[in-house]
Amino acid sequence: MTARIDLNSDLGEGYGAWTMGDDEAMLGIVSSANVACGFHAGDPKSILATLREAAARGVAIGAHVSYPDRVGFGRRPMDVTAAELTADVIYQIGALQGLCRAAGTRVSYVKPHGALYNTIASDARQGAAVIEAIREIDPALILMGLAGAPILTQASEAGLATVAEAFGDRAYTPQGTLVSRREPGAVLHDPEAVARRMLRLATEGTIEAIDGSSLKLHADSICVHGDSAGAVAMASGIRDILVENGVEILSFTERRA
Amino acid sequence: MTARIDLNSDLGEGYGAWTMGDDEAMLGIVSSANVACGFHAGDPKSILATLREAAARGVAIGAHVSYPDRVGFGRRPMDVTAAELTADVIYQIGALQGLCRAAGTRVSYVKPHGALYNTIASDARQGAAVIEAIREIDPALILMGLAGAPILTQASEAGLATVAEAFGDRAYTPQGTLVSRREPGAVLHDPEAVARRMLRLATEGTIEAIDGSSLKLHADSICVHGDSAGAVAMASGIRDILVENGVEILSFTERRA
Amino acid sequence: MTARIDLNSDLGEGYGAWTMGDDEAMLGIVSSANVACGFHAGDPKSILATLREAAARGVAIGAHVSYPDRVGFGRRPMDVTAAELTADVIYQIGALQGLCRAAGTRVSYVKPHGALYNTIASDARQGAAVIEAIREIDPALILMGLAGAPILTQASEAGLATVAEAFGDRAYTPQGTLVSRREPGAVLHDPEAVARRMLRLATEGTIEAIDGSSLKLHADSICVHGDSAGAVAMASGIRDILVENGVEILSFTERRA
Amino acid sequence: MTARIDLNSDLGEGYGAWTMGDDEAMLGIVSSANVACGFHAGDPKSILATLREAAARGVAIGAHVSYPDRVGFGRRPMDVTAAELTADVIYQIGALQGLCRAAGTRVSYVKPHGALYNTIASDARQGAAVIEAIREIDPALILMGLAGAPILTQASEAGLATVAEAFGDRAYTPQGTLVSRREPGAVLHDPEAVARRMLRLATEGTIEAIDGSSLKLHADSICVHGDSAGAVAMASGIRDILVENGVEILSFTERRA
Repeated sequence: MTARIDLNSDLGEGYGAWTMGDDEAMLGIVSSANVACGFHAGDPKSILATLREAAARGVAIGAHVSYPDRVGFGRRPMDVTAAELTADVIYQIGALQGLCRAAGTRVSYVKPHGALYNTIASDARQGAAVIEAIREIDPALILMGLAGAPILTQASEAGLATVAEAFGDRAYTPQGTLVSRREPGAVLHDPEAVARRMLRLATEGTIEAIDGSSLKLHADSICVHGDSAGAVAMASGIRDILVENGVEILSFTERRA
Repeated sequence: MTARIDLNSDLGEGYGAWTMGDDEAMLGIVSSANVACGFHAGDPKSILATLREAAARGVAIGAHVSYPDRVGFGRRPMDVTAAELTADVIYQIGALQGLCRAAGTRVSYVKPHGALYNTIASDARQGAAVIEAIREIDPALILMGLAGAPILTQASEAGLATVAEAFGDRAYTPQGTLVSRREPGAVLHDPEAVARRMLRLATEGTIEAIDGSSLKLHADSICVHGDSAGAVAMASGIRDILVENGVEILSFTERRA
Repeated sequence: MTARIDLNSDLGEGYGAWTMGDDEAMLGIVSSANVACGFHAGDPKSILATLREAAARGVAIGAHVSYPDRVGFGRRPMDVTAAELTADVIYQIGALQGLCRAAGTRVSYVKPHGALYNTIASDARQGAAVIEAIREIDPALILMGLAGAPILTQASEAGLATVAEAFGDRAYTPQGTLVSRREPGAVLHDPEAVARRMLRLATEGTIEAIDGSSLKLHADSICVHGDSAGAVAMASGIRDILVENGVEILSFTERRA
Repeated sequence: MTARIDLNSDLGEGYGAWTMGDDEAMLGIVSSANVACGFHAGDPKSILATLREAAARGVAIGAHVSYPDRVGFGRRPMDVTAAELTADVIYQIGALQGLCRAAGTRVSYVKPHGALYNTIASDARQGAAVIEAIREIDPALILMGLAGAPILTQASEAGLATVAEAFGDRAYTPQGTLVSRREPGAVLHDPEAVARRMLRLATEGTIEAIDGSSLKLHADSICVHGDSAGAVAMASGIRDILVENGVEILSFTERRA
């Protein structure tokens, strides 16, 4: 049986006159695009352009929903109410669905962004609000979350399909959580080492933890970045080593179909 | 044959802690609600609450799309490009569609708001951008516009269904256009006179122009306001006189079905 | 010696087409106005109108600075960095100072709003960022904070003048902190009882805690609200009982001069 | 007598996580910085960083005020009222003044940005609103405008000091107005030719119009751009040729002092 894995990246993160990352390049690398919905980044015109290009390349679309914090790029934890969060997530998914229809594609999954992603990984109250949003707008949407995080179990129990993702450039604790960015060694910079880690993850389902131990980690998708030339090169290197070793790069949405 | 007409009003125009108008009261009067989509007014939580209430009352939903100008309440003309405007309109309709799915209803029509409404009434370039947006997201959506304005013809020729609306509290020129608000007598304040005008419009298809002449005016819907106690009373008076005289208050979306 | 106290209220909290509270009425009651600076409420035109009216009435002006969260009205805790918070507070104070110059008045003090107010009451890191902002833009500005809260000591130690405020409509614990709004009896609704409490506070420096014990509380200012007709009546009642009993209503800024 | 001229550029135009242009490089080239005030670009933290760097380099600061249109980068004409525009401009100047105090510098002049710049060049109503704003917040502030445009006369007649600027990379009509960007040849791309044009402008007060005729043009300042590597190189080339030919690069604010 062929090993398969999805590669995902955050795209559509410009805003008006401002650009961020190289969407064009990344759409040639990934199988899934987490597209900004306007709350942390993305204006309708630039989102639509990214969606059209993704549609042309056959890349699956996820709604990259966020707290309403454009100046903070959605990276600052906010203590919002469940009712606010549920409605904000529905609004963003709906807006992206509308733009997807215009672009001839559709939203297949939801990946919360930044501080919201980190918060719901383990905050069951905000997690429930996001799950509720997905159930209300379209229960067939898949929730993408951090491999091993409680949110995935919470979402499954609520009846949602889920996808677990790993981070190519992040170190893991022996328990399978991400090493905090405040710790030394939390972010990996060597493209070749990162590529080999991801190959092992995709083929063996294991990854080397920061203490050198081998960790079993189930991941359906690998998150790669495109916000600098170095990041694009690292993402490209991951794709290349996977393909060269017979791993199929395929969106989880296609595997389900 | 029974005379029928639709009553529409702008709803969902609060924003966060700020409220505007009496949505509760107006949803008992109108058959169609033009619901703000977040660009001039409306935050997701309050929009969703208005949609749930409208769904419970069986009131049809229109997307009240606007220029991105919250501080100006969408009332200031903006020289946006066609690509910006098309994407902005798609985004707003999509967001409202998402919230409608959560509320168990759907978007049936599109009514541009404020300065956008006035601009596209006769500006074919911006009008084309709005038409394009509707065609791209859902060509079955109906465009509501000013009775007699060129935009309705433009939209029809582009294949869209349209609905013409009249304004209960506005004076008309003998040519069928609205008397500018800068002119004396442009806005009518006597609830009883307004109600009688609208009864005549609904039953005879005519209205008295500002010079006293009789004007033929085809309107499928009457726009009423709910932004003050006086406005709600005027709207209620229009509804009452219509019903008492056997005119059926019915959304144009139901007549089509 | 005459007892004196300041009455303060949150004003200028409209936004564009939306209004909030009755600034006109409140400016006839209070001696100090906490004026919104645009981050949680207030657009430049409406802020300027409030400042002109406050200047005409001789009411002192405070900068009511907030997290950047208009849709949440600044009521949601946000985990911002110190550098972001310091710059945001300077920006808001500067903007209000500019509008004050146009209105023929000046900013005399700073009162953080909503979630920022509550957070810095005891969070020394965010408190330090606010203090730093005041020191950088104008160290003569007075910081208004919750009577008894650590932020007042922190600000004094950093060289700022401070003003302690009490809340007319809130219950206090025997330790002098506010009873949480989640607890029964946290908010007081009887205007006469509230007025008598404030008279006792202004003349004796004591207040009855929620358990009936007498609590010493030093307050230079009493915060009153104007967001409903009932609130305005309560504020008016506090002013009346104070004046009738010989307490002078005077801004702390005048007493210092 | 030594020829002197000012070089100005638009700086501080990032927003949160988004950057624009190379402020660091440009601050080594220009004598005046038009700094964004938050309405088209600029968040408080990044504006403050730019101001600190400008202060360290001795570069004069202008308030680059805009319509409130971040997503459109202030480039879209908006039909705002005079009262809105005056208050918006005061707010922005005040905010920048506050940040300048923290950075140890001050606002010396005002340069409207983008669509507002173009509109007031000849629209006397909006021009009057901007002039009124400057007079209300600080009548000593200098207004920078397009050389030869009616706004400069209008401002002078209202008692403001003014500075006329020329554009290095734009073609001029024989009448002294800018050739519209829609016309061929409107934007000049040859760095050496541009540099020679600006040398001639600074030393002789003339410039070659698009038809080859020689045009007298009085300019106190030359606007250069820093939004691409090519733009920075062109700006640097202008500075170099001026310096090499004995023209002093000096802010007009220093010449006045």
